Amino acid sequence: MIYITRRERFNAAHKLFRPEWSDEKNLEVFGKCSNPNWHGHNYELFITVKGDINIETGFVIDLKALKAIIRTYVTEALDHKNINLDVNFMKNKMASTEVLAVAIFEQIKPHIQIEGAELHSVKLYETENNFVEYFG
Amino acid sequence: MIYITRRERFNAAHKLFRPEWSDEKNLEVFGKCSNPNWHGHNYELFITVKGDINIETGFVIDLKALKAIIRTYVTEALDHKNINLDVNFMKNKMASTEVLAVAIFEQIKPHIQIEGAELHSVKLYETENNFVEYFG
Amino acid sequence: MIYITRRERFNAAHKLFRPEWSDEKNLEVFGKCSNPNWHGHNYELFITVKGDINIETGFVIDLKALKAIIRTYVTEALDHKNINLDVNFMKNKMASTEVLAVAIFEQIKPHIQIEGAELHSVKLYETENNFVEYFG
Amino acid sequence: MIYITRRERFNAAHKLFRPEWSDEKNLEVFGKCSNPNWHGHNYELFITVKGDINIETGFVIDLKALKAIIRTYVTEALDHKNINLDVNFMKNKMASTEVLAVAIFEQIKPHIQIEGAELHSVKLYETENNFVEYFG
Amino acid sequence: MIYITRRERFNAAHKLFRPEWSDEKNLEVFGKCSNPNWHGHNYELFITVKGDINIETGFVIDLKALKAIIRTYVTEALDHKNINLDVNFMKNKMASTEVLAVAIFEQIKPHIQIEGAELHSVKLYETENNFVEYFG
Amino acid sequence: MIYITRRERFNAAHKLFRPEWSDEKNLEVFGKCSNPNWHGHNYELFITVKGDINIETGFVIDLKALKAIIRTYVTEALDHKNINLDVNFMKNKMASTEVLAVAIFEQIKPHIQIEGAELHSVKLYETENNFVEYFG
Repeated sequence: MIYITRRERFNAAHKLFRPEWSDEKNLEVFGKCSNPNWHGHNYELFITVKGDINIETGFVIDLKALKAIIRTYVTEALDHKNINLDVNFMKNKMASTEVLAVAIFEQIKPHIQIEGAELHSVKLYETENNFVEYFG
Repeated sequence: MIYITRRERFNAAHKLFRPEWSDEKNLEVFGKCSNPNWHGHNYELFITVKGDINIETGFVIDLKALKAIIRTYVTEALDHKNINLDVNFMKNKMASTEVLAVAIFEQIKPHIQIEGAELHSVKLYETENNFVEYFG
Repeated sequence: MIYITRRERFNAAHKLFRPEWSDEKNLEVFGKCSNPNWHGHNYELFITVKGDINIETGFVIDLKALKAIIRTYVTEALDHKNINLDVNFMKNKMASTEVLAVAIFEQIKPHIQIEGAELHSVKLYETENNFVEYFG
Repeated sequence: MIYITRRERFNAAHKLFRPEWSDEKNLEVFGKCSNPNWHGHNYELFITVKGDINIETGFVIDLKALKAIIRTYVTEALDHKNINLDVNFMKNKMASTEVLAVAIFEQIKPHIQIEGAELHSVKLYETENNFVEYFG
Repeated sequence: MIYITRRERFNAAHKLFRPEWSDEKNLEVFGKCSNPNWHGHNYELFITVKGDINIETGFVIDLKALKAIIRTYVTEALDHKNINLDVNFMKNKMASTEVLAVAIFEQIKPHIQIEGAELHSVKLYETENNFVEYFG
Repeated sequence: MIYITRRERFNAAHKLFRPEWSDEKNLEVFGKCSNPNWHGHNYELFITVKGDINIETGFVIDLKALKAIIRTYVTEALDHKNINLDVNFMKNKMASTEVLAVAIFEQIKPHIQIEGAELHSVKLYETENNFVEYFG
């Protein structure tokens, strides 16, 4: 078994807030991340897939296929978008890095299996100082 | 004469659009950067100051003072904000990296002079692939 | 279960030596790292915490709380210090990256539990080419 | 148990192709990586070793010894070489990142054991966007 | 006047040698860079353009246009190629980073002028430790 | 004319203080950088040389020669040393990044001329957030 990782990037706006809370409570819990007019990030996404090496190609998975899956099901939906408002698979969810990583994992998982490999993890950087990792 | 540079960072939302244009024209000119619901970036800012070395301290400028100037006049206004809506010195301006770099230069320049040095340049990264530099 | 990581940095002096050994023996075993007058590094520290996502906030742990723990119990004690001479939790220990990573883990672990999450690992870079990782 | 990682780098040429296939079929399967006249990469290699901390030295493994093993058995054979043509331990193998990572693992493993530690993983970056990891 | 820079990357094989010299002389002058079977790099290219800011768009140059110029006239010719054998604008030239940077400058310069801006510099990284810069 | 840059690194201890001042005054002026027991950094050094391209080799300067100059006259003197105590060319000088960059420039300049090129600049990073540049 071997693990292969592909990095993709997307730039998006978001905010952390609960609509049923007052602005004061949102500010108290989420700090400057609750700014009503949004803020944004250059997200870095690392998708790790595991499986056996195909003897003919030397590949776990064709990187062109992996790239196409990530772009079709994840980054086209997120890049240059507002995570809270524009992204179907984030509707009615908190736009935290943790929740976003889990949602990306669910988006990608079945398409990796069709390629004959297995999704191992989603690693998502919000800034150079903060990232989350989810293994399913 | 020697040059010293301080890096600071801020995370902000923005969009590129002209309100007097239709959404179609904005999309044609600005592409996905015109997304009506905003998108955002982790901006990286490099402020370069030049001057002579103070013999007693070995400094061109006290980095604590330089850091305070950048934070007070630039990053506190921009970090976790919407550049188009929340930032006084960007009101009625295009929120492009070029225009933002020029505005930051004007914000900082007089405060560097008070410290006895001279602002040389503002370098502003929007993504790892795109940056601008302004020398006044 | 999801994993979140926070990066913090500190700049410190140290040397590798055993006081009961001669300078020659220290040099033989530790090479240039035994320089009697010290040397130093920009250390990069990655603290990884694991737990379940809080449904209300979307967080595993409040990053402001995680940051405060790392600063209070680790980086304030280490930043701009001499690891061999100035740091209580390193007294009478070898100032190797391995031993330091273990000591940082012990410093932080109980404070993460108070926040309702679990410390997963400490990753510590001494240079861009060398790092250690400890999981408890 | 603690983990220590050493980064080394090498610059090499390679191509992905099967000699029994036509150029058309190689192009179809391997895309531009099958260019007959080769292409190349700056590979980044991370070797992770695990073991207990030696009480006298504070080390899992002497980094000078680890560095020497990686250079003698891996990077001297690969640096400024053609992976398909010049490297004994890659003869008659696909020059994919996956296959190369496995071969490097096998090259290094016995020499780490002689030093009293255990090889944990080989992580190999082909580009900033693609890497593989092998745990034996 | 403001400066904007776009980063692009390409992966290529090359070697440094003069065909009229013996292998021994090539080795003496060019060291391991003369390996007869080639080696390769992940090149990083930074193209800097200067000009005035367009008042309507806030741009010096449309980054989509700049990206298209770099890809059409430079990286499509170089990416996954052998610089000595496959690249028309490098025929009969030394494949050194210096000579390649100059050739890229000449390739791009007229196309930037058509866009109403001016090519300022080409910066080309061969490795993380070595790069060249050419200003025309 | 073309510019070539070589990166080298060194890890050193230092402190900022004036011996004729009290500890209180040193602390007031230099902050935590005045810690009596030292602190340290992973310094990154970029040496830029300019000249014409040699037609036979395609080089401005042989990088092996440039590397040897930097190591012989700069990094061997600084790496794993105390800048205030162990480095001849820093004796009786403030160990600030500015002063160190100027001293490195003077150390290297004549040796570049012997190789038939000209030293253009010394760029010295103390941390990822602070660097200085000196052009002579």
